[in-house]
Order: sequence, then C-alpha cells, then structure tokens
Amino acid sequence: MKKFVNDPKDFVPEMLKGIALANPTTLKYIPDYNLIMRTDIPRDDKVSIMQGSGSGHEPAHVMIVGKGMLDAACPGNVFAAPPADFVYQTTKLVAGPKGVLHLLNNYTGDTMSFEMGREMAEADGIEVRTVVINDDVAVKDSLYTVGRRGVAGNFFVIKAVGAASERGASLEELEALGNRVVSVTRTMGMALTGCTPPGKGSPIFTLAEDEMEMGIGIHGEPGRKRVKLAPANQIVDELFEAVRSDLPYEAGDEVALMINGMGGTPISELYLLYGHAHELVEKCGMKVKRSYVGEYCTSLEMAGFSLTLVKLDPELEDLLAAPAEVAIRIF
Amino acid sequence: MKKFVNDPKDFVPEMLKGIALANPTTLKYIPDYNLIMRTDIPRDDKVSIMQGSGSGHEPAHVMIVGKGMLDAACPGNVFAAPPADFVYQTTKLVAGPKGVLHLLNNYTGDTMSFEMGREMAEADGIEVRTVVINDDVAVKDSLYTVGRRGVAGNFFVIKAVGAASERGASLEELEALGNRVVSVTRTMGMALTGCTPPGKGSPIFTLAEDEMEMGIGIHGEPGRKRVKLAPANQIVDELFEAVRSDLPYEAGDEVALMINGMGGTPISELYLLYGHAHELVEKCGMKVKRSYVGEYCTSLEMAGFSLTLVKLDPELEDLLAAPAEVAIRIF
Repeated sequence: MKKFVNDPKDFVPEMLKGIALANPTTLKYIPDYNLIMRTDIPRDDKVSIMQGSGSGHEPAHVMIVGKGMLDAACPGNVFAAPPADFVYQTTKLVAGPKGVLHLLNNYTGDTMSFEMGREMAEADGIEVRTVVINDDVAVKDSLYTVGRRGVAGNFFVIKAVGAASERGASLEELEALGNRVVSVTRTMGMALTGCTPPGKGSPIFTLAEDEMEMGIGIHGEPGRKRVKLAPANQIVDELFEAVRSDLPYEAGDEVALMINGMGGTPISELYLLYGHAHELVEKCGMKVKRSYVGEYCTSLEMAGFSLTLVKLDPELEDLLAAPAEVAIRIF
Repeated sequence: MKKFVNDPKDFVPEMLKGIALANPTTLKYIPDYNLIMRTDIPRDDKVSIMQGSGSGHEPAHVMIVGKGMLDAACPGNVFAAPPADFVYQTTKLVAGPKGVLHLLNNYTGDTMSFEMGREMAEADGIEVRTVVINDDVAVKDSLYTVGRRGVAGNFFVIKAVGAASERGASLEELEALGNRVVSVTRTMGMALTGCTPPGKGSPIFTLAEDEMEMGIGIHGEPGRKRVKLAPANQIVDELFEAVRSDLPYEAGDEVALMINGMGGTPISELYLLYGHAHELVEKCGMKVKRSYVGEYCTSLEMAGFSLTLVKLDPELEDLLAAPAEVAIRIF
C-alpha cells in the first residue's frame, strides 16, 4: 500500500505539526513529549481529561482534542503505546487544582504506560483517576489485551466526560460517569483489507479477494473468524446481533448508533451500512436518538467498519448533544 | 477492491436512505427522483440552491445538503450525470418565489442534464440561474470535459452562496457571488491508486506499486502525467506550485487552504500533507486564514488528495465562517 510519507520516523510528528498549524488558536503541539493539547488548559474550574494510545487510529485521539472533548492527547508511534514518561509529562502540563482524568482503551501496552505515568504524577501531588474503556464484544482476550479491547466506543466516553467537565463536574463524578458510559456501550468491527504501518512498509496482515475478518481488532489482531465475503446487509446483521445481545439492548431502549469507518472505506458505503443498521434497531423496538456515521477510530487505511450501540438516558443524551469543537470538522 | 454492497444497482438508493435515516428531522430522501433535500425548503425568503453530479464523490453533494449549504442534491448513478428529468423535478420541488440557483461542476454530462432541466423548469415559470465550477488547473480539456473540470473547490462556492442565501441575497446576487468564488479558487489533485465503481466490480484504472498520477480527475480520467512515487513533501510542492502560479496567488494574499482526501487516504496522512502545504503558503508571504483538512470531494475509495487555494476578502471570509449544518459531522 502506497502512502503519503517522507521519512517514516517523522510520520507522527509531521501529522501533529499539521494538526496544530490547522488550529493555531485552539491547539498546540509540544514536540518534546509528542503531544497535542488545548491552548486554554489547565483551568482552575475544570478537571483536565487526557488520553494516549498508539497512533494510526486517527481521528482518535489527537484530532479530538478540543473544547468539550479531550484536553490533551499523547500518542505513541503507529500502533505503539506512548512512553510512560510522556504520559507523566502530559499529566503535569494539563493538571489544575481539580485533578486529571486518564482515559485509556484497554490494551496492555497502554495500561502499563498509564499506570506508571499516573504513579509518577501522583508522586508530584497530582490527583489522577482512570477510566478503562473495553467496549469490543468480539473476543475475551486477544493478542495485545487481557480482557476486552477498547475501540470506537471510546468516543462516547470522551464526549460525555468532556461535556460534564466543562460544566464543572468533580474528578470523582467524571470517573463514575466514564465508567457508567463504558457499562452501556458495546462495539464489534470487521475488515475487508489489512493496513500498512508507515515504518513497516508492508501490510501487517492480508485478506484474500473473497475473504473478510469478523471481530477484528484495530491493530489487525485476529477477531472471531475469517470467512467468505458477504453482502453488506448480512455483515451488518451479524455485527448488530453480536453487539445487541451482549448488554443486552432491548425493546424500549433509546440508543446512539455509530457506524465507524476503519480508514479506507468511503463514506458512501458507511451510510449504506448505517441505513440497514438503523432499520435493525427499530425492528427490535428500540429507538435511535442519536446517529454517528464516519471515521472515529481507525486502523490507518484498513477497509472495514465497526458498529457501536450506546444505551441512553436523559443525562447521557444531553451530554452527547452538548457543543464541542475539535480538529475534525468540515467547516 | 472489496466493497460493502448488496445489489450494485441499489448502491446509491441505499446510501441515500441511510443519509435520511441518520438525519430524520432535517433531511428527506425522495426515491422517485433519487434526491436528498432539506425538510424546510422551499421558503419564501430564500433562493433555493441545488447541485447534482455523479455519485461516488461523497460527501459531495448529497451529504452537504443542509442549513447554510445546499437545499437539495440530485445525484446520478456512480460517476454518471443525473437524468435531466430529475434535475427538473428537483428544481420544481425546491422552487420558491425567489428562484433557484443551479450549481454544477464542469463535466459535459452534468452540463447537458442541467441545461435541459433548467429549460423545462423555466417553461414552468421558475426563474433559474446557473454557476459552473471549473477550479481544476491540471488540464485544459479532458476525457469528460470541455474546458477545466470542477472538483473540490465546489465546496467553497456552495458554502458562500449557501450562507448568503440564508441572509436573503437575491438570485442575481448569488449568481454573481458564485462566479466570484469560482474566479478566486484553484485546485489540483493526484492519486496513488485507482477505484472501483460498485456496478463495475473492477478498477477503472490501475497504478503500479511505484507509480502515481499527477493532475488526475475525480473519475480517474488522466491528468498531467504518470510518474514515479515521490516523498509526500515533494508531491505537495508540485501541486502547490501548479495551483499557486495559476491565478496567481501572491505575497500579501489571505487564503483558505484545503487538503481534500480522495476517499481511501487516512486523515493522518492528510494532516501530514496539510502541515507542509501550510508552510509553503507562509513561505510565499501569504496568510492562511481558514484551513480545511478532510474529505470534501472524493472518488470512491481512491487513495490520493487534492490541494485547493481560495483568495479571500472580508466578505468571503465571513460567509465561509457562517454556521452551517449538514449530514457530515462528528457530533
């Protein structure tokens, strides 16, 4: 797979520089710690919220830093956890008197870095709490994870705690809210193709012209099964049933429904998939109150998508509807 | 290239259904004429604005229907102009007392359909004006076009006339404004890969692993040259110079800068490209006042991008900054 790259080792820094140049008043890039943060943080009246993970999942997380979302993101290299020291330095930079909330998708590398970074920050007297996101129903353990993986559902956790933090919620309240969103959020994804990290130059896995991988992870790690390619509606049927039955989501529930593109699938196909997923939700007697179609958590240029359901209550729906401003925007 | 599709002949209708289901209060899908329109149009106090083109360029144009943008879009099948009758029917549906503005990217098929559709609407007493967008500097004539092609720069025309129409501008004023935006907008694109229309099932062109096509059209039609793959910055250098020198854009100019993804290139790479383009603009003594990074006008899942410059004045900058609401959104 051909890519737009100069020296592969500069891929992440050059991307971060571009994000800051495109958002000069609201975001800054700090090369020493490879991070993107808001220009107006820390604030005395607000818990700061940060996340880090491997790069290659954009817009997660460096492009969803902004008002009402993350206050900072410290990415690692492509598909590699950020160093613990960068987690620590980012925590120090964003820390105000109300403390810092760490969000992390459940991958072993990220967990180790964030635990160490948190300990270092706490030794400096910074109060830190952590919410671990593990919305992927596909597999119990996987190549890089003990327990369930954290995938596109992390968007809803960030959006909810980001909105609540702007309204002055305490660190304890945000930790509880984050865990509550995790408890009602489920996702499963699949892929049509592999993807190529810039530093590797060759695909991390391949699928034949008539194959797809159901339940895939966002680093190409194996899912539930590799099967023959199927019509779009049949793929949606299978992901939807895996997700729906897990919580379970039931008749009468009000939900948010997300079709998340994995990076290489055009938005036309994502809306086609959304249409069928929406009808499945309604057929089960549930109601779609909020819809999300686009790229939220990707795997470089992998073709594929994931389906996420979130069970809503009035408070959560209100937080998801609150205004927010991030790098990803059309206008 | 594998795709999410059921029956290929249902690809466009199923996508349109998904758009309407995801935006139930603001948009409606009218299957009879294959169109997406706002639910609150026509209005007595506003000129209606519509565009049609082949499908496969999403979000253009069916996903940028909404407040402050298009009032309706009537797409054809993938890479095929809409039938003249659908242009006519769409014009009738959106027409209010202030008339209808047709926007169209300069492709011969679209031009023929819109000319016929306009004549049919005028025979019914509807006042119609037309703005033709031809921002692509790559080639003078091409496979499907006499004159320059219309590509991603159409976003700026739609945004400006959409905002002005919400403020009550007349049909004549909008026609003049649209032509003024066209006159200060230039684009050039390139591709790393081909793309596969769902109904065809095989790529419409192919590029070798070490090749790229500079100046490509948005239907894969040939550009200026097919050359060896180059580092990202060198590709940006070449597109920037082709675009900059065409108007020309000069020191002291204030500009909008767009890096538009062609469908299969991840947003991480687009921001890397943006960073270098931004620096080139500043090196020429110009100032980037507004930045756009993402997918605006695509070619299905083609990997590639285009670079657009718009010379701004205070009125145009204000129109581009005005609020707007379309299907494409993250929140």
